[in-house]
Amino acid sequence: MALLANIDRERGEKLRQCFAAIVPNERLVLPDEDFAASDVRYLLTWKIPENLERFSNLEIIFSVGAGVDQFIQTGVPKGATLVRLVDSGLTAMMQEYVTMGVLSVHRDLPAYVAQQKAAVWKQVSVPPPASERRVGVMGLGELGRGALDILGRLGFQRSGWARSKREIDGVACFHGPDQIAAFLSSLDILVCLLPLTEETRGILNKTLFAQLPKGASLVHAGRGQHLQQDDLLNALDNDHLRSAFLDVVDPEPLPQDHPIWHHPKIILTPHVACITRVEMLANAIATNLHYYRVGEPMRGIVKLERGY
Amino acid sequence: MALLANIDRERGEKLRQCFAAIVPNERLVLPDEDFAASDVRYLLTWKIPENLERFSNLEIIFSVGAGVDQFIQTGVPKGATLVRLVDSGLTAMMQEYVTMGVLSVHRDLPAYVAQQKAAVWKQVSVPPPASERRVGVMGLGELGRGALDILGRLGFQRSGWARSKREIDGVACFHGPDQIAAFLSSLDILVCLLPLTEETRGILNKTLFAQLPKGASLVHAGRGQHLQQDDLLNALDNDHLRSAFLDVVDPEPLPQDHPIWHHPKIILTPHVACITRVEMLANAIATNLHYYRVGEPMRGIVKLERGY
Repeated sequence: MALLANIDRERGEKLRQCFAAIVPNERLVLPDEDFAASDVRYLLTWKIPENLERFSNLEIIFSVGAGVDQFIQTGVPKGATLVRLVDSGLTAMMQEYVTMGVLSVHRDLPAYVAQQKAAVWKQVSVPPPASERRVGVMGLGELGRGALDILGRLGFQRSGWARSKREIDGVACFHGPDQIAAFLSSLDILVCLLPLTEETRGILNKTLFAQLPKGASLVHAGRGQHLQQDDLLNALDNDHLRSAFLDVVDPEPLPQDHPIWHHPKIILTPHVACITRVEMLANAIATNLHYYRVGEPMRGIVKLERGY
Repeated sequence: MALLANIDRERGEKLRQCFAAIVPNERLVLPDEDFAASDVRYLLTWKIPENLERFSNLEIIFSVGAGVDQFIQTGVPKGATLVRLVDSGLTAMMQEYVTMGVLSVHRDLPAYVAQQKAAVWKQVSVPPPASERRVGVMGLGELGRGALDILGRLGFQRSGWARSKREIDGVACFHGPDQIAAFLSSLDILVCLLPLTEETRGILNKTLFAQLPKGASLVHAGRGQHLQQDDLLNALDNDHLRSAFLDVVDPEPLPQDHPIWHHPKIILTPHVACITRVEMLANAIATNLHYYRVGEPMRGIVKLERGY
């Protein structure tokens, strides 16, 4: 029985070292090593590899990241359990990114970056105190709740929206399609951390933007396919939205001639909000394998029917 | 007896409204209004105005901001007390700015902004967890301690340096010229929030940068005259320093042809880290006038001999 780590050799060797330190009895193999396909019970991978059917005894697929839409789209083999990466280090990375993004739009950094490009020295606004800025997070899983926590410590007014009902201390929680308009109309800054599913694909579109108050900003660290990019550009160009801080686009990499690159109201980063460190993978998988063997629920099991 | 608010009419009228709501018996006059100079006991101003000697009964000068170096340079009249602005809203603004700056250099935002300008989609690094980044704040007054608080909540390793000994929970505190080398050599990110005095003018220079580990970053929200700009540019260009997030330069505005504007490792904002809102002024002055009249110490009294 073995865990096949479908990652590059450098990261694979590092993962092996981590495993040796924390679960020395676990057998870890890399794709170019010698092993019998029937020995592979556990697969760690970014996406479904070709010829998955040769792993006839596969029990668990561990995703290298928090998002699993790439697996849902390809299809997970019957009988296998799909597990997303849930790790406190990953949550912390997203907290950092969302905090950076929210503070940046709160303090007009997109405009100041554009002014710097043009060598213009000018105060753009007097920002209100955080206690008067309403930040709403779409997606209230591990990452969303982690981001809301630190935003609360900075004093922002907080709300959240998810598919199903949630309760979070100090956060006005909305859920389902019926409550999305009320959620959106109450915001100055919208943060998208949704999983990508059939229901959420393209959700950041002109209809949604129109429900935000004039002057609102977007921080998007979900998936590129959540966003109708042309609708965002229109909303920024006609001054309905104030600014956007984006980590994801569609396609990635963004084509060289795409207008997002040079838009004066957008800061774009190349899908780096959450970067999986090998140490995170080792800890999360070792912990989950332990749970699995003693019959306790693993953390991050994906419900295939809902898509996340 | 009157408070003369040496600010523009729009802000002056707003200040008057705030005063009317919280201290209705306080007489507030604006520069172009009719009043006797001998009635002016309190002066609110950015800097020493001309003909200050006509206010023969002046007791207190309230600074519109946290920094008071502009008063020290001009000279404060004998017998008058100089008071800086100390306000929780101002501390919060600096917390926000420093948090944004530290997260930005931690997460390589200067490099990503430069890449966006060039339409380049590339991950720059895998950032370590905040718990492995060592952030040090120079200047441990209200603003410095406020910034350190939120950096702690984000998990950063924290240290601080000030002129005289301080103790802050969870922060390794250094003080005086003898300990500055030990402080600097332990940092990944240096934050400057020092007051500008004869001792600190030009302190951010090649000697100081050489004491930082290779790859460290600078977040500077003190005063432009703390920084030897050519030394910073050299340290960035020869890869000793990784990046800089600057709010202040010298002179301000920065000349159009200055290399800082277009430097790929620098994010520059136009002195907006702390912007004084009229409500802050009203609250801080009303509170201090109350203390003054009942004989309690005001908050923010400047010790002229040390310069802050």
